[in-house]
Amino acid sequence: MPLPVPVPPEGVDPAWLPPAAFRPLGSRRTLIRGSGPLVDTVHGEVAEACARFGGRVVRDAGPGAAPYDLVLAVTGSGGEEFTCARRDGTTTVTAAGPAGLLYGLFHVVRLGEDAFRAGRAPETHRPAVASRMLDHWDNVAVHPVMGQVERGYAGGSLFWADGRARGDLERVRAYGRLLAACGINAVAVNNVNVHAVEAHLLTDRIGEVAAIADALRPYGVRTHLSVTFAAPVVLGGLPTADPLEEAVRAWWARATRRVYEAIPDFGGYVVKADSEGQPGPFAYGRSHADGANALAAALEPYGGTVHWRAFVYDHRQDWRDRTTDRARAAHDHFTPLDGAFAPNAVLQVKHGPMDFQVREPVSPLIGAMPRTRLAVEVQATQEYTGQQRHVCWLGPMWSEVLRFRPDGRTPVGELARGGLVAVSNAGDDPFWTGHPLAQANLYTFGRLAWQPDAEPRALLDEWIALTHPDAPGRLAAGLHAVLDGSWRTYEKYTAPLGVGFMVQPGHHYGPSVDGYEYSPWGTYHFADRDGVGVDRSRATGTGYAGQYAEPWARLYESPDTCPDELLLFFHHVPYGHVLHSGRTVIQHIYDTHFEGVAEVERARAVWASLAGLMDPARHARAAQRYEEQLRGAREWRDQVNSYFFRKSGVPDRRGRRIY
Amino acid sequence: MPLPVPVPPEGVDPAWLPPAAFRPLGSRRTLIRGSGPLVDTVHGEVAEACARFGGRVVRDAGPGAAPYDLVLAVTGSGGEEFTCARRDGTTTVTAAGPAGLLYGLFHVVRLGEDAFRAGRAPETHRPAVASRMLDHWDNVAVHPVMGQVERGYAGGSLFWADGRARGDLERVRAYGRLLAACGINAVAVNNVNVHAVEAHLLTDRIGEVAAIADALRPYGVRTHLSVTFAAPVVLGGLPTADPLEEAVRAWWARATRRVYEAIPDFGGYVVKADSEGQPGPFAYGRSHADGANALAAALEPYGGTVHWRAFVYDHRQDWRDRTTDRARAAHDHFTPLDGAFAPNAVLQVKHGPMDFQVREPVSPLIGAMPRTRLAVEVQATQEYTGQQRHVCWLGPMWSEVLRFRPDGRTPVGELARGGLVAVSNAGDDPFWTGHPLAQANLYTFGRLAWQPDAEPRALLDEWIALTHPDAPGRLAAGLHAVLDGSWRTYEKYTAPLGVGFMVQPGHHYGPSVDGYEYSPWGTYHFADRDGVGVDRSRATGTGYAGQYAEPWARLYESPDTCPDELLLFFHHVPYGHVLHSGRTVIQHIYDTHFEGVAEVERARAVWASLAGLMDPARHARAAQRYEEQLRGAREWRDQVNSYFFRKSGVPDRRGRRIY
Repeated sequence: MPLPVPVPPEGVDPAWLPPAAFRPLGSRRTLIRGSGPLVDTVHGEVAEACARFGGRVVRDAGPGAAPYDLVLAVTGSGGEEFTCARRDGTTTVTAAGPAGLLYGLFHVVRLGEDAFRAGRAPETHRPAVASRMLDHWDNVAVHPVMGQVERGYAGGSLFWADGRARGDLERVRAYGRLLAACGINAVAVNNVNVHAVEAHLLTDRIGEVAAIADALRPYGVRTHLSVTFAAPVVLGGLPTADPLEEAVRAWWARATRRVYEAIPDFGGYVVKADSEGQPGPFAYGRSHADGANALAAALEPYGGTVHWRAFVYDHRQDWRDRTTDRARAAHDHFTPLDGAFAPNAVLQVKHGPMDFQVREPVSPLIGAMPRTRLAVEVQATQEYTGQQRHVCWLGPMWSEVLRFRPDGRTPVGELARGGLVAVSNAGDDPFWTGHPLAQANLYTFGRLAWQPDAEPRALLDEWIALTHPDAPGRLAAGLHAVLDGSWRTYEKYTAPLGVGFMVQPGHHYGPSVDGYEYSPWGTYHFADRDGVGVDRSRATGTGYAGQYAEPWARLYESPDTCPDELLLFFHHVPYGHVLHSGRTVIQHIYDTHFEGVAEVERARAVWASLAGLMDPARHARAAQRYEEQLRGAREWRDQVNSYFFRKSGVPDRRGRRIY
Repeated sequence: MPLPVPVPPEGVDPAWLPPAAFRPLGSRRTLIRGSGPLVDTVHGEVAEACARFGGRVVRDAGPGAAPYDLVLAVTGSGGEEFTCARRDGTTTVTAAGPAGLLYGLFHVVRLGEDAFRAGRAPETHRPAVASRMLDHWDNVAVHPVMGQVERGYAGGSLFWADGRARGDLERVRAYGRLLAACGINAVAVNNVNVHAVEAHLLTDRIGEVAAIADALRPYGVRTHLSVTFAAPVVLGGLPTADPLEEAVRAWWARATRRVYEAIPDFGGYVVKADSEGQPGPFAYGRSHADGANALAAALEPYGGTVHWRAFVYDHRQDWRDRTTDRARAAHDHFTPLDGAFAPNAVLQVKHGPMDFQVREPVSPLIGAMPRTRLAVEVQATQEYTGQQRHVCWLGPMWSEVLRFRPDGRTPVGELARGGLVAVSNAGDDPFWTGHPLAQANLYTFGRLAWQPDAEPRALLDEWIALTHPDAPGRLAAGLHAVLDGSWRTYEKYTAPLGVGFMVQPGHHYGPSVDGYEYSPWGTYHFADRDGVGVDRSRATGTGYAGQYAEPWARLYESPDTCPDELLLFFHHVPYGHVLHSGRTVIQHIYDTHFEGVAEVERARAVWASLAGLMDPARHARAAQRYEEQLRGAREWRDQVNSYFFRKSGVPDRRGRRIY
C-alpha cells in the first residue's frame, strides 16, 4: 500500500522537495518491486508524483504489464546501497534493501530528466558512513536563557512546544522526508544539555519520543535521545551514577529495555558528560570510557549506539593562566582511552579543537584514536557564522575538513567510521532554517555525509536544481554567486587568520573583540600593542601543535610554514609579520575587513537582481536578511579595524576610514 | 489609641530599629499630647518600648499626672519641624504637626540616653527639602530580563510577588517604619520602566496600590506611582497620547480622579519619558514641559506632583560618531524649557550627567534651571558600585554632590527644591539590602535628604549606634574602618579617573574594559596605545565642559586645572600625563588598582575580627560577601591593569604582576 506523502502546514516552504521537482518521475510509468514500510513510502512518493503529472505506477506486477520507464526494485533485505542503470528504454534502480530503494528514488528525483536519458552508464551508490545524523539542540521546556532551541535561529522546535511533544507531527513527517532526500538517517531529538524536564524523556516521557520516532520512521530516519549521565540519580533515585556500580548498570539496563519496548528501532543515546556543567564520570573517579561503556552495555542487546561527546574542557579557566590551552583538552583527555571504548560506543568529536569557529584547524583527536569509532560533528546551525541572518554556506568548510588527512594519508571522511553528525539548523520557521539560503547547509551536510569526497559545488548544483526546478540559468548563476564564496566572505569580515571568537559574549552574535578575552572560557587572542595570536607551538607555546601527526605538527610549529588562515591560531606574531600572501598581518586585517563588506554589498545587489525569479516570500525574506548582514558586516569591519588600529597605531596603507 | 508596631516576619533583620535601641525611651515616663493617626503611631512606638523596658506612657493627661521624663507634644496641624529641649528634668519634643512628632520621636531614639542628659541645649530640626523619596524599580510581573526588581540586589520586591501586590503587607509596614526613622516620606512603588502589566496599576489595579499606601501611611510615607506616558493609548484606547489633545488631558483627569478616590493622600506620578525606549511627548512633536504639564494639570486639584525624569538621551548612538556626547543630553534637552514647567511638576535629575557611575561630575543641569523645581536623584541600589556584594558606602559621594555649588555659591542640597530621590536598594531579603552593610546607604540617604549638609561620618555614627545599640567601641571603630573609605576603595579598583563604565554589558557586574566601547549607549573611553579619556572641552572636544557655570567651566576646560579624579571624564590624555598627585596616568591606574585590592583585603580582615560582636547571621552574610568582593576586586585589578599594560606597553614602576 502506498504511504501518503506528508503535507506540511499551509505556508511552509517545500525546501528542496517542491512538487515540480517530481515532474520527470511523475510523468513516467513506474514499476515498484519489494515490500515493507519503506517500499510503501517509495510507492507513496511515486503515486503522488504520478497523480500530479499524469504518469502511472504499479506494484509488483508480473512481466506482462511492461513496458516501464522506471523500475524500482528491492533485491535483498538490508543495506542502503543502490544501483541505477539505463537499458532498453528503462531506468532501473536496484537496491540491496528498502532503505536503498528510498535513497535510489531520491537519486532519480535529483537526476530529473537526466535519469531517463539514453546511454546513461550504470552507477552504484553507497554511503561512506553508516550513520548520518542530526543533533537537535531542542529543549522540551523553554529554557530561561537558551529558549526553546539552544543556538536555534529558525523559530521554535519541530518536535517540542509548550513543554511537550507536538500533537500534530505531520510537519515532522515532512521533515523526515527532506532528510531522507539528502541522505540523513538519524536524528537526536533533544538538546545535549539535558535539563530537568528533558531528563524524563528517557523514562516516564518516552512515549513522546516514540511518537516522534513513528513520524520519522517512514523515511528511514532512526531516533536518538540525549540523556543525562546523572539519570540513575535524578530519575532512578539511586545515590550514585558511578558507571561501575552494579545498581547503576542495572538501572541503565532496565531503562533501556523500556525504551526499546516503546521504540524497537531506537538509535541510541547521545551524552554530553563532564562538559560545561553537565554531570559525568569524573565525579566518581571514572574515565570517560567507563562512562560510555556503561551506557553502551545497556544498548548493546538491542543494537543501539551511544554517541559520547568529546567536548570536554575546563570552562572555568583563569584567563591569567597561559599554560592551560582549551584546544589541547579533547586530545589530552581522550587519546589515553583509545581502545577502551565498547564497539557500540562512538566518540563524537567536534571538527575543530575549539567550538565551531569560522576557521579552525581540524581537531588532532581525529586520526589519533585508531582503535575507537569516531564520529565527526559539524554545526549546521550558524552559532558563530551569522546565525542564519548572514549567508554563510558551509559546504566548502566541511569539505575541507572531510578531505583533510590527519596522518598525511587517510581523509577525515574515512576516519569518521562512527558517522558524521551536524547540529541541526532547522526549526518551525516557515523556511525551516530562518534564512532560506541556510537550507543549502542542511542539504549539503546530508549529501557530504553520504559522500564526504563530493565536490561541494556539485552538491550546491543539486540543491539549486531541486529547490528551483523550473528556474532559468540566471537564477542558478545568481545563487552560486551569493553562496559559493559566502563562507570566506564571512571569515573576512569577522575574526581574522584563525584567531576565532571576538564575538559578543553569551549570544555570540556580532563583534566584541575583547568579549572573551578576560573570560573563563579559554578563548583568548592576547592582542597587545605589538602583536596578536596564541602561541601553541611546542617550542615556546602550549604545545598544542605537537598533538598533530606529521606533516602537520612540523607545518604548524613554525609561523614560516603555518598556513596564513591559521596563523593566529598557532602563533603570536607582531602586527608587521609578513604573511605568505605578502601582506602584513595588520594590513591583512584591514584589507579583508574592507573586502568582506564589499563582498556582502555585491551579494546583496546580486540578490536584488534575482527578484521575480522565485517565490516572492522567499526572495523578500532573504532580502531583509541581507540588510541585516550588511549592517552586521560593517559593524564587524569597523570594530575590528578600530580595535587593531587603536592598539597597533599602524595606519591603513590605503588610507580608508578607521574609527 | 496606640497603633501597634509592625512585626516583620520571623528572621527578618531589625536593621536600624532593633528593640534595644528603644531602651532609653522605653524605661522612661512619657506623656504624649496630640491627636490623629501619626500621633497614634508615636503612641504605639512608645507603648511598645515601655512594655519591653518598664517605662510608662500616658496620652493627653492633665497637669496633675506629672512628672514625666519625656513630653511629646503636637502644637499645630501640619509641618515636619520639631524642637527638642531639656528643662527641669523633662525632655520635651514640640512638633508643628503630627509628622514632626514622628520625626521627633525617632530623634529621641537616635539620641538614646543623651536625650535625657541634663543641660542639653534646645534644638530645632526641620527638613531641608519637603520631598525625601525612594523610587522602587520593582516590577509587578517578573520581567524576563530584569527580573522582579530591575537592578535589585536584595531578593524580591517588598511590594509585589507572583504578579500582584503581596497579600500580607506587615513587612511593608515595617519598611515604612524604617523609612520614617531616617526621614524618608515618599515612595514610588513601581519601576520607572513601566511594562504592560504594571501600566494597569494606574487604572483597574489601583486597589493594589491603595493597599500598599495604607500600609505605608501610618509612618508618614506617601505613595507615588510610576506611569507610562502612553497610558491614554494603552489603557484608555485613545488613538494618541498627545499631551495637548483635549481627550488625552480629559483621560488623565479622569484617571487621576479615580486614583485619588482610592488614595486620598496619593503623592503623584513618576514618569520616564522618551528615555531608553519608553514612550514620550517627542512622538507628538511636543516638548517635555508639554508632557509633564499635562500630567501636572491632572494632579493639581489634589495637591499631587509629577516627577518627570530628565534622563533623556540617545541610547541608539553610533560609537563611530564622536560629536554626540551623552553627557550633554539632559542639559541640551531641558535648559531651554526652564520656566515652562507647571509648579507641581518636578524635574528629576540624576546627580551626574551619565548614569550613577562611581565617579561623575555633578550634572550641569542642576543650577541651570532656576525657574524649575528640580529633584536630584541618587542611586542607593548599587548597580554600578558592587551590587551589594561589594561594600561601598555612598554617603561621602552623595555628600560631595549635595555640597557642590554649581554657581560657586548655592549648594546642590539647596537647589534641589523639588526634593531628593534615591533609587531604593531594599527588597525582601532578610537583611533588607542583601549586604547587611548596605543598610547604611539607605539610612544615610534618608538623613542626608533631611539635612544635606550633614557630616556623613556623623550619620554613620548614628546608624552604627542604632543598629548595634549595645556594641562596644571596638565594633563601632571596626564598622567605621570598613565603611568610611569604602567608596574610594571601590573607585580605586574599578574604572579610573572618572572615565566610568568598563563594566560587563547588560548586568553591569564585574569588569569589561571594552564592554561598552563599541556599543550604542554613548559610554566610551577611547583608549588607544597612546592615551585614554573623553575630550569634553569646549576648545577641542564635545563642549560639555561649557555647560557649567564658572568657576567650573574654566576649571574643567583644561587638563591642568581639572581635578585628577575627573580627568578622564573631561580629557583624552597620554598615558604619561602627570597628575596633580605627581603620578602619571598609567602609574595611577596601576597603583590604585593594587591599592584598592589591598584595601579590600584589609577590610575583610577587619570584618573577620568583628565576629562575636554582632548577630552571627549578620556577620556571616557579610563575611561571605567579602570573599566575593575580594575575588571581584582582584578581577577588576588584573583586567584593568592588563588591558592598559597591553595597550600602553608601559611597565609598572614597582614591577608588580600584570598579566
